[in-house]
Amino acid sequence: MKIAVDVMSGERGPEELIKGALEAAAVYNINIVLVGDKNIINYILQRHTYNKDLIEIVHASEVITMKEQPTAAIKKKPDASVLVSARLVKDGLADAFVSPGNTGATFAAAFMNLGRVKGISRPAILTPAPTRTLGQYTAVLDVGANPECKPINLVQFAVMGAAYAHTVWGLENPKVGLLSNGEEDSKGTELTQKANSILKKLPLNYVGYIEGRDIFNNKVDVAVCDGFVGNLVLKTIEGAGLALYNILKDGIKSSFWAKMGALMMLPVFKRLKKVMDYAEYGGAPLLGINGITIVTHGSSSAREILNGIRVAHELVRTNVNDIIMNKLKEYGVNKFNWFKWE
Amino acid sequence: MKIAVDVMSGERGPEELIKGALEAAAVYNINIVLVGDKNIINYILQRHTYNKDLIEIVHASEVITMKEQPTAAIKKKPDASVLVSARLVKDGLADAFVSPGNTGATFAAAFMNLGRVKGISRPAILTPAPTRTLGQYTAVLDVGANPECKPINLVQFAVMGAAYAHTVWGLENPKVGLLSNGEEDSKGTELTQKANSILKKLPLNYVGYIEGRDIFNNKVDVAVCDGFVGNLVLKTIEGAGLALYNILKDGIKSSFWAKMGALMMLPVFKRLKKVMDYAEYGGAPLLGINGITIVTHGSSSAREILNGIRVAHELVRTNVNDIIMNKLKEYGVNKFNWFKWE
Repeated sequence: MKIAVDVMSGERGPEELIKGALEAAAVYNINIVLVGDKNIINYILQRHTYNKDLIEIVHASEVITMKEQPTAAIKKKPDASVLVSARLVKDGLADAFVSPGNTGATFAAAFMNLGRVKGISRPAILTPAPTRTLGQYTAVLDVGANPECKPINLVQFAVMGAAYAHTVWGLENPKVGLLSNGEEDSKGTELTQKANSILKKLPLNYVGYIEGRDIFNNKVDVAVCDGFVGNLVLKTIEGAGLALYNILKDGIKSSFWAKMGALMMLPVFKRLKKVMDYAEYGGAPLLGINGITIVTHGSSSAREILNGIRVAHELVRTNVNDIIMNKLKEYGVNKFNWFKWE
Repeated sequence: MKIAVDVMSGERGPEELIKGALEAAAVYNINIVLVGDKNIINYILQRHTYNKDLIEIVHASEVITMKEQPTAAIKKKPDASVLVSARLVKDGLADAFVSPGNTGATFAAAFMNLGRVKGISRPAILTPAPTRTLGQYTAVLDVGANPECKPINLVQFAVMGAAYAHTVWGLENPKVGLLSNGEEDSKGTELTQKANSILKKLPLNYVGYIEGRDIFNNKVDVAVCDGFVGNLVLKTIEGAGLALYNILKDGIKSSFWAKMGALMMLPVFKRLKKVMDYAEYGGAPLLGINGITIVTHGSSSAREILNGIRVAHELVRTNVNDIIMNKLKEYGVNKFNWFKWE
């Protein structure tokens, strides 16, 4: 297996990303293609020891930054590291690619070069959200690729989310819920009501409507929503976590006793930090793209890249896209047989 | 001023609610009508000392519980305390009413009996959400009355939210934002894009699109969204807060040192609890209803009822509904002159 890693697009610079990629090669014994400025990559590699059989370099002369408008940047920079990475997958020279940073640009690069899994109407971005149980996540999708959805999209997101939870988390029969403004079937919008009634008829482990709080209590493994709602929910979680962190920090700073107390509580805070730590999640896969693609945060650490590569590795190893394609067909919810539901 | 308080619909029983109502009468020197079973109310009043000139009782023989389906319950129980309370406002026998519990039933009771403020297309439920700054909130609306909205609704929610922040929080020129999946004008849905472009033309202090995290960082005073999104965002905040609380609690219980540390950090945790404490917010006003109506939590404490009455008192005193009606007309966004935007 060979995974391409865009080591240029991160905000911390290539050193951190290369470090994570080399670790992943060693830990999972997989081939890695480092994509970016070959002079910079070679310079950094000199300072590391690694198995040369597992690492190769593919040059890319340009970089798309976090701040650039995705479609404009993609047109302006044909040799950008994210595009070169996507083309490696397209040309069969890599099985997957991992890119930190500009989600829109990565999505566009992947969509243009790799297209969609057969039967998929629209690909989605999945992000694992923390729950109250350390090490357990709820997969939320879509978190931004599709601000406006149709019922087929929500239904397909459910199938893709379940495939992710099955292949990456090893869950036999993942529980799937549809985010809504209440649990009763009478709640929701025209969009969610249609999707809810179809999902109930599929052989998925579908629990029905769930509410915002159910993201955290392990009621489901997969929470489905449109990209507008998903993005808002995700940013709300980030914002709530940051606000609580700041309130605690300000409080701890304010008195000697609180500082001492915080020291004694250090293991508890470390645990809390670990629950909230994005680096552990393994990035956001672009599901429904015909080629495994993972976006990690712009500020990705070596650890986050390592985990992103781990997830890419799992998705390739388990042929998640074949699973998705076959399930869509089996359930009668691919775009070719969807007309039956309309 | 006279405020009706439904003392039967809360989950903690009438004792707690009557206590809050008596306190409010004393603190704000206003007349209170206690609505509910007169025998129970009289029995409880015997055990309190209070200014008899300020307190009266209106009998209601029925109660709608939290679990009942709102419209069915309203039909089945014409003498429910929440309906009797709404009718007191309709008949001019009270200036406002406060009810703990079933939001749907309260909304239906208010809507049916009081109707809408002139020019309002749809009323909305506003809920103050906590921010990272103790004592500062962001007003989020709508949080559930309107799962599907049109641009006129979002625009009117912005005007109503600003009127609330002005009258209840005393802000001269409240900052208003529209929740979206990104800050750029190109983001959002057809609905939010239309509302965003209209809001930019109004003489409101409109900052444009905001993201989920901006609810907590005091970037705005009012966050506008449809009721589907608002309900999800609000429940997500609740869920995130509860998850963090449980993680901290489990961690503290797990070791002697953590317990000692937590004791030393008690003022910090109390501050955190206070930020998250619903009892301080003053309930959720139903804005756009032609008669001041406040819903508080089903599990309302005396303190929450007291604060709900305080907010009702402010909304009546400042004639918030006249302000809303006049602003809608002045801005050209009431339902009679909306056609200009279409």
